[in-house]
Amino acid sequence: MKNSINYLTLIAVALLLVFSITSCNKKAEETKEAVIEPTFNLANAKAEIVAANKEFKLFFAAADSIGLANLYTQDAKFMNNGAPAVTGRENIQSALSGIMKSGISSINLVTVDVWGMENLITEEGELSLFVDEAIVYQGKYIVLWKKVDGEWKLFRDIFNSNLPAE
Amino acid sequence: MKNSINYLTLIAVALLLVFSITSCNKKAEETKEAVIEPTFNLANAKAEIVAANKEFKLFFAAADSIGLANLYTQDAKFMNNGAPAVTGRENIQSALSGIMKSGISSINLVTVDVWGMENLITEEGELSLFVDEAIVYQGKYIVLWKKVDGEWKLFRDIFNSNLPAE
Repeated sequence: MKNSINYLTLIAVALLLVFSITSCNKKAEETKEAVIEPTFNLANAKAEIVAANKEFKLFFAAADSIGLANLYTQDAKFMNNGAPAVTGRENIQSALSGIMKSGISSINLVTVDVWGMENLITEEGELSLFVDEAIVYQGKYIVLWKKVDGEWKLFRDIFNSNLPAE
Repeated sequence: MKNSINYLTLIAVALLLVFSITSCNKKAEETKEAVIEPTFNLANAKAEIVAANKEFKLFFAAADSIGLANLYTQDAKFMNNGAPAVTGRENIQSALSGIMKSGISSINLVTVDVWGMENLITEEGELSLFVDEAIVYQGKYIVLWKKVDGEWKLFRDIFNSNLPAE
C-alpha cells in the first residue's frame, strides 16, 4: 500500500511538473509573439498613405480646399515653398486655396518610399503641378503622417522645386 | 523506511515546483522589461541631433564639404531647392560645395521638433544662410535622421525658402 502511494505521488508530481513547464513555455511564447510580430506592417501603412494621396489628388482636382485641409491634422504645419510655414487647418486651407487660385488645376503625387512606425510615417515623394494638361512644376516632398483616430493625416508637409526659380 | 522515502519524494517535488515556477516568472519578467522599458528616449535623441547639427554648422563654416558629406548616410538623398535630388555622399559633397562656392559662408540650424524611434528620427527645423554676417536666406527644413553604427546621420534632407524667389 505504501509503495502504491509512493508511485501515485511520483505520478502526480510528474504531471504537475509537465503542466508547470508547459504553461510556462506557453506564457513565454505568447510574450515572444507580442514582441517579435507587432501588428504594425510598413507595407500596409504605405498602401494606406498611397490611398490618402489619391484622396488628396481628387480634392485638389475638385478645387475643394476644405476637403484638402481636412486631410491634415488639426495642428499640422504646411511648409510652403517661398512663404513662411502656416499652422492649422484654416491657414492650410487658405494657402492651398491660394495655390489653386493661381491657376494650378491639378496635382500628381508619387510615393517614393516610407519609413516609420505605427502612428507616425515619413514619406518621400515626387510632385507635379498642372495647369490643365501642362506640367508647370516638378518637385519633391517629405510628408510626416500621423495616425489620428485610425486615419493617416498630413502632419508636416514640405516640398521644393527641381528647377531653379525663373 | 518507505515512509521516509515518501517524504523525501514530496520534498524533492516541492523544491522542483518552486524552482520551476520561480525560473518561469523570472523569464516572464525579463521579457516584460524588454518590452515595456525600451532604452530609446526621444529627449536624448533630440540632444544628439542638436549636437550633430552643431557639427554640420562647424564643417560648413570651415567650408569642409567632405566633413559635411560624411554627416550623411552613404545612401542619403539631398533634396536641394531649385535642383533635382542627389543621392550618395559624393554627389552631396558636390552640391554642398556648390552652395559654398556661390558665396554662402555659414549656416544656422535651429531644431524645432523631433519625432520618431530608436534608429529613425524626423526633425523639423529652421535654417538661415549667411554671406559673412548678412542673412541671405531664411527657410525651413525636414531632415530624416538614421542611426548608423551608433551615430545619427542625415538620410533625407529637404528645405525651402520663407520668401518668394526674387
